[in-house]
Amino acid sequence: MGRNRFSRRARRTTDQPISYLMQQAVANPRIISLAAGLVDQEILPVAEALATVQDLLGDADRGRRSLQYGTTHGDLRLRERIVEHLEHLEGISARKMAVDVDHVVITTGSQQLLQLIGDVLIDPDDVVLVGAPDYFVFLGTLQTLGAQVETVAMDAEGLVPEALDATLAGLARTGDLPRVKLVYCDSYCQNPSGVTLAPRRRPEILEILYHWSSAGRIFLLEDAAYRELCYEGQSPRSIRSYDEQGETVILAQTFSKSFAPGLKTGGAILPPSLVEPLLGQKGNHDFGSANFNQHLLAELLASDRYRDHAARLRNVYRHKRDTMLTALEYAFSQLPVKPHWVRPAGGLYVWVTFPERVDTTRGGPLFAACQQREVLYVPGEFCYPAGVAVDPTSPLGGSSNTMRLTFGGLSRAQIREGVARLAGAIRDIL
Amino acid sequence: MGRNRFSRRARRTTDQPISYLMQQAVANPRIISLAAGLVDQEILPVAEALATVQDLLGDADRGRRSLQYGTTHGDLRLRERIVEHLEHLEGISARKMAVDVDHVVITTGSQQLLQLIGDVLIDPDDVVLVGAPDYFVFLGTLQTLGAQVETVAMDAEGLVPEALDATLAGLARTGDLPRVKLVYCDSYCQNPSGVTLAPRRRPEILEILYHWSSAGRIFLLEDAAYRELCYEGQSPRSIRSYDEQGETVILAQTFSKSFAPGLKTGGAILPPSLVEPLLGQKGNHDFGSANFNQHLLAELLASDRYRDHAARLRNVYRHKRDTMLTALEYAFSQLPVKPHWVRPAGGLYVWVTFPERVDTTRGGPLFAACQQREVLYVPGEFCYPAGVAVDPTSPLGGSSNTMRLTFGGLSRAQIREGVARLAGAIRDIL
Repeated sequence: MGRNRFSRRARRTTDQPISYLMQQAVANPRIISLAAGLVDQEILPVAEALATVQDLLGDADRGRRSLQYGTTHGDLRLRERIVEHLEHLEGISARKMAVDVDHVVITTGSQQLLQLIGDVLIDPDDVVLVGAPDYFVFLGTLQTLGAQVETVAMDAEGLVPEALDATLAGLARTGDLPRVKLVYCDSYCQNPSGVTLAPRRRPEILEILYHWSSAGRIFLLEDAAYRELCYEGQSPRSIRSYDEQGETVILAQTFSKSFAPGLKTGGAILPPSLVEPLLGQKGNHDFGSANFNQHLLAELLASDRYRDHAARLRNVYRHKRDTMLTALEYAFSQLPVKPHWVRPAGGLYVWVTFPERVDTTRGGPLFAACQQREVLYVPGEFCYPAGVAVDPTSPLGGSSNTMRLTFGGLSRAQIREGVARLAGAIRDIL
Repeated sequence: MGRNRFSRRARRTTDQPISYLMQQAVANPRIISLAAGLVDQEILPVAEALATVQDLLGDADRGRRSLQYGTTHGDLRLRERIVEHLEHLEGISARKMAVDVDHVVITTGSQQLLQLIGDVLIDPDDVVLVGAPDYFVFLGTLQTLGAQVETVAMDAEGLVPEALDATLAGLARTGDLPRVKLVYCDSYCQNPSGVTLAPRRRPEILEILYHWSSAGRIFLLEDAAYRELCYEGQSPRSIRSYDEQGETVILAQTFSKSFAPGLKTGGAILPPSLVEPLLGQKGNHDFGSANFNQHLLAELLASDRYRDHAARLRNVYRHKRDTMLTALEYAFSQLPVKPHWVRPAGGLYVWVTFPERVDTTRGGPLFAACQQREVLYVPGEFCYPAGVAVDPTSPLGGSSNTMRLTFGGLSRAQIREGVARLAGAIRDIL
């Protein structure tokens, strides 16, 4: 019997480093995982979901429609609700933003949208720009696609426009601009850094992309997964809202963080020219995400249940963030090592940058000491493209001296204990 | 502003021909669509789904787990139920079939499995063998992947083993065997032909693949989407059940036909060597299908509701099939044109083969006459790879003289009226 022969895509795919961390946590229940990006289990909206399903399936006709096949594009009623909801978030009318219900596509969470955009745009050796650091699942997707991934510097206000411009100018000089297809930007409480892109940078980034699109349009994939978890102040307008024709920005959105990951439903706003190509790929992927879940969310958005629940979540996560920041301040006030972090205005993560001499990598002494003390973090190195070493003296640190901590799925007692164990591990290696 | 530049995948993707038919049906509600592959709307299991959700979400702890993130692999409890259910369908123990819960992967319907297998195995110019005719959605997926698709003759007992062997021998002679990665076989009440692969052919096909796998394993993708809609006699054992090591057959299964398409959940049994590569791709696609739907189906399979509903469906579809066959017999007894069809032992489709002179293509006079009379069918040409002309005198006809009719979503009165309109259109063109 002959050997197996896999596709080039399969051969480019490596194990997600995060799966190792997940396995560790499952294997030893005493571990406190500051690594797992789960949402708070205790306030998952069981009652809200049940009441909504009862409304939906209590009406036999609507119930039957929800259990039938839907369309590749997604349920029209949900797409209408998503447009209304976007108007509410932006404080701008859909017409003024050139957002139309036909440009909304429903996907199996926002991750499917990221994959589909990759399938539509990216050939091997095409260039994609990401932040330093950035979301590791998408970095894995880009690696599978064979993209050449370049990082753009970030600071406490997000992606640095001047750095983006300089990177594109450099690519133009070497004749590589025609290969640049996409810039990825997680613009609200970014995973992993917790940073929200500053309002004034939003139109600036867009202008830079317009400028460098002469050799072919460079799309901006704006990931707004954590938008509704902004719990401090008003969340800024999306980059999409500044893209008046709507031809450059792809806005990825999901209900996973703001309602429930178990429903795995997202709704993206696409440039009109991408709708048909994306539906072509989605026709191959599944010819439509679960129709029942779409009807459920449409029903939910039409009631007050969704907004009320999202408000409750913001309150819970704000308290948890405060618990973690207080615990970090206390723990490190006792230690000679002084890390720094950006105070996140939302989301589930705190990105911690250590002095250059502290090695946070998975192969390093701190990670091992943490395993001894039964606490896990995400080594910062996972949040940069494989093989890219980022200068540890960058504003957000580099690939060898950073870590992502999450407070989303933990109780306040677990957060305190997890941070204490982390500080203990630091003491162990000093 | 520069033009858009799409990936090679996107450029290889063409509009699914079926979407044109769907649009026609939506645009004119008076049309009777014998084309749309919907399931019966009237008996969709609204009460069963509601009771199951109430059981699931009525327990706050289980409810919360169902609304949290799941794993890329899929819910363990559902995977266990799927293994038990397979044992029940086959009448063979999982151990004897070398089926393990770790080899089960949950996907967003079986279509996602077909796409993921393509992503794992197929590079452009790799060879995939399909039946003549075969499932048009997968033909579209293969076109996007850039595969070279070869057809294998079918008759009333399904894929012809001798034809498969001859095709592989021919590819070996021309040195192309190393490019052959996959054979696709929809083994129960095939979409579109309604044919079920004869029991004695099942191990024969497997032996042929073992024989030709010296240059690299040729996988068999067995699509069992319609298995639980076999309503005449006992449904045969799967091809998978003859693959003792389980290293060659990928068994694609879904709950869409046997319960509800709206839940969009399937569970595939994979060769052990494909589990990790497939999860690698699924990690990029969505890192797990909707967890809520998986919990719902696990709950359902643990009750009698699932089997009772599937039995009810078989009863309803058997009556509809009989209505369509009786209507066809009656209509064509009055006409000088004598088509033939295989009496399907299950599923939702009747494949009609006309004498060579009747042109059933979308550009032909019959299709136009049917539009005039407000009835739609799927032209057989859509069920062969693009550009492949199959001999109209083949046992199941060819690409120019066949059509797929479906009775799944229609009432018995609509089936009768639809067939009468079709016969009227035939009369119009004579």
